[in-house]
Amino acid sequence: MNHPYTIVFALYPGVTQLDFTGPLEFLSKLPRARCLLASSRGGDIRADGGVVFSGIARLADIERCGLLCVPGGLGTMEAMEDAELLGQLRRLAAGADYLSSVCTGSLLLGAAGLLKGRRAACHWAWLDSLAAFGAHPCPDRVVVDGKLFSGGGVTAGIDMALTLMAEIAGPEFAQTVQLTLEYAPAPPFASGRPELASPEVLAAARRRIDQLRDRREEAVLRAASSL
Amino acid sequence: MNHPYTIVFALYPGVTQLDFTGPLEFLSKLPRARCLLASSRGGDIRADGGVVFSGIARLADIERCGLLCVPGGLGTMEAMEDAELLGQLRRLAAGADYLSSVCTGSLLLGAAGLLKGRRAACHWAWLDSLAAFGAHPCPDRVVVDGKLFSGGGVTAGIDMALTLMAEIAGPEFAQTVQLTLEYAPAPPFASGRPELASPEVLAAARRRIDQLRDRREEAVLRAASSL
Repeated sequence: MNHPYTIVFALYPGVTQLDFTGPLEFLSKLPRARCLLASSRGGDIRADGGVVFSGIARLADIERCGLLCVPGGLGTMEAMEDAELLGQLRRLAAGADYLSSVCTGSLLLGAAGLLKGRRAACHWAWLDSLAAFGAHPCPDRVVVDGKLFSGGGVTAGIDMALTLMAEIAGPEFAQTVQLTLEYAPAPPFASGRPELASPEVLAAARRRIDQLRDRREEAVLRAASSL
Repeated sequence: MNHPYTIVFALYPGVTQLDFTGPLEFLSKLPRARCLLASSRGGDIRADGGVVFSGIARLADIERCGLLCVPGGLGTMEAMEDAELLGQLRRLAAGADYLSSVCTGSLLLGAAGLLKGRRAACHWAWLDSLAAFGAHPCPDRVVVDGKLFSGGGVTAGIDMALTLMAEIAGPEFAQTVQLTLEYAPAPPFASGRPELASPEVLAAARRRIDQLRDRREEAVLRAASSL
């Protein structure tokens, strides 16, 4: 019981940093947790917002992990065609106790063939794409299907991590970490979901997202066809 | 109007990474935003959880910024005695449109002499320490005092950033970013504040925090006495 509990966050260029930095802040508090950032090639990873993470491990060098977490981001479009990444996700998932994703990270799990017949979450604007991989898209913020824990868009990763932490270490432990990180969210606005936002806000968000829709849908179809 | 809007996150070893990665994810969406991670010495910064950030700028090399944000973390204990850091915070704050902090980052603003007579937030367990710097400690999750925006513990930084974003770019813009990042939090438990947590959870969190209390209080008193 003294060996570390290895938690791997599988990264790629253009990952959304809050997709994994949020869950990491919580999950790193698990007893004996050892959090590893890893990618196909190791080295440095540039995330959105220009943040550079260094000392990234190579996925191939990690023998096994207890928990594998795959964050999302605009870089998923290219990452869905990174055969090394998808192969390593399959290998690590096969030996892991828990598999998890945040936001469009579930598209990568899908592209790796890990979601067939399983319920999963995704960012609200990309949720439908999961069906191309044989998954059952689910609009909930946190979706639990056996040992698969998936979260919706970006900030849902924190709620997913807290849910997963309660499963691994019990609800009282999870609540203690929640108190330590003062997670009593109080957003000044209630527009974090399409059904809550005003028509103007929804239209503005869709304009931004629709610029990428064709490219992402093509990437999903290519990835799904090679499964 | 084409020049970038520079947002500086002032880091130090042992910073809590979610204190700034959360706000950064939101604030980096501001029009023309250029987010810079900076520290006394530049180079790499190791945050809690073992995450290493690279390509960190030197604070002294940044001429000015529109927004200065100071995150918290256990490393504040040493950082409160980093004269170079405190001097640079004073210099950049003097030229900034907005000054902000997350969690125990407000202790660093206090140590830099920037909180005299001002209302500010802090992590719930360290809030009282602000008084040593002449500030008025306020238990709210987000505290606005003129151009000073401060957040409570760790995750409060996201609510602070969204509040600040609405001030800078208007509520509709802030809500659009909120929707894009699907920020409709739904924690599985309600124990993110001392008054919400069960007695057992509060006691467990306090046990962890009390191990550091003496050291932190000494650091606060030393920093306050040299103001």
